[in-house]
Amino acid sequence: MGAEVESVYLAPEAGDAEQTVADSAAGAGARVFELAGGVLERVADTVTPQPVLAVVRMPVASVEVVRQAALVVVCVGVRDPGNLGTVVRSATASGADAVVCCTGSADPFNPKTVRSSAGTVLQVPLVVDVDAGTVLDLLGAEGVRRVGAVASGGRPHTDVDWTRRSAVVLGNEASGLSDELVDRLDERVTIPMAPAVESLNVSMAATVLCFEVARQRSNLHKMQDDGDRTAAPAVDRT
Amino acid sequence: MGAEVESVYLAPEAGDAEQTVADSAAGAGARVFELAGGVLERVADTVTPQPVLAVVRMPVASVEVVRQAALVVVCVGVRDPGNLGTVVRSATASGADAVVCCTGSADPFNPKTVRSSAGTVLQVPLVVDVDAGTVLDLLGAEGVRRVGAVASGGRPHTDVDWTRRSAVVLGNEASGLSDELVDRLDERVTIPMAPAVESLNVSMAATVLCFEVARQRSNLHKMQDDGDRTAAPAVDRT
Repeated sequence: MGAEVESVYLAPEAGDAEQTVADSAAGAGARVFELAGGVLERVADTVTPQPVLAVVRMPVASVEVVRQAALVVVCVGVRDPGNLGTVVRSATASGADAVVCCTGSADPFNPKTVRSSAGTVLQVPLVVDVDAGTVLDLLGAEGVRRVGAVASGGRPHTDVDWTRRSAVVLGNEASGLSDELVDRLDERVTIPMAPAVESLNVSMAATVLCFEVARQRSNLHKMQDDGDRTAAPAVDRT
Repeated sequence: MGAEVESVYLAPEAGDAEQTVADSAAGAGARVFELAGGVLERVADTVTPQPVLAVVRMPVASVEVVRQAALVVVCVGVRDPGNLGTVVRSATASGADAVVCCTGSADPFNPKTVRSSAGTVLQVPLVVDVDAGTVLDLLGAEGVRRVGAVASGGRPHTDVDWTRRSAVVLGNEASGLSDELVDRLDERVTIPMAPAVESLNVSMAATVLCFEVARQRSNLHKMQDDGDRTAAPAVDRT
């Protein structure tokens, strides 16, 4: 889907590469500003920022996108911004059609989330601030199987049939999914692991699950040759 | 393999659970100290530390362990402590026999690494400070296939035959594996992904690869029932 660039700010240290970015954004209607020395360092939240900064409209999708999805990742109370960003990155990389950040999850536009997502929060249709129960009901009504990750007692992830339309439901880092939400799942999934290890963290679990989905669907190789993505209805978050 | 506890320090806030840990360690020969209020907060590197602290001998394995291994993860220049810890956690969880941290990788006993590894740096045989070329030669001589992760152009990870004895070789976060090391691999592997995403970070890639190994070996389920791990010859790092 891409993201709409509103404006671009160039530091004096910007070179040809950054100027090319700015020219391209200007061609698409963005305003470009040249900054005095030291300004970018004061507004950026990194110690040594890149010499170009862009202001991008936060793209947020309507929850309706899940109706058409073959794979959705639903985050319920994923609190750590770094974890959330990694979940979004893995979901996008594995071909998920949407990521839902339910009320109580971290802000997907937190700078740490954006950074750990490697910018994929601007690429995948992202649904924010929706009630987990509402999303699960909507998915169920559409026939999307709601498969929740649980630390133990679920079906091994390689035995789950991921060729059906599926939602991977991820709970809180410490407490997982509530009993109430687990009762509303179609399936519970557990990643078997060596007994020395108690668990994976939520972002690693998401990575394993998403790439098992992609493997079973055998669409991994195709994805590399096929640059096309389905655009989703997006609404502004402003 | 477990780790040798030298001493345990209890804060005044310690409860029955922490006392049980201390008693158990004392039974195994560790010394136990009760601290005054506020002491633990000054020595711990977290803001709100747990009320118990243990000093553990850093277990380091000889590079010889790789001779017997069915799965080894070799980190070449993995610089970020958090990434390295996650690699160790995934490797251990997926049943790897050893993790090798070559010269130039982060310190596996850095507090950030220990934390992101969820303590698995004390559980898996860990080889440190060895030259990458030496390790690859040793693995080759033992018939262990050296499979290096590359961002593009490698065989899709699901098409690699991981049922053979294998080493997953991981390069630097920014620059990957050097051309010289790539030339010494038996195989290059790439994780196919959606075109919107440039790459996974090294810890996510390691997670995907390790769990694909485990899936192909169909030993995931067995691992849950079988608490036994092969102990490896360990040498002190003191």
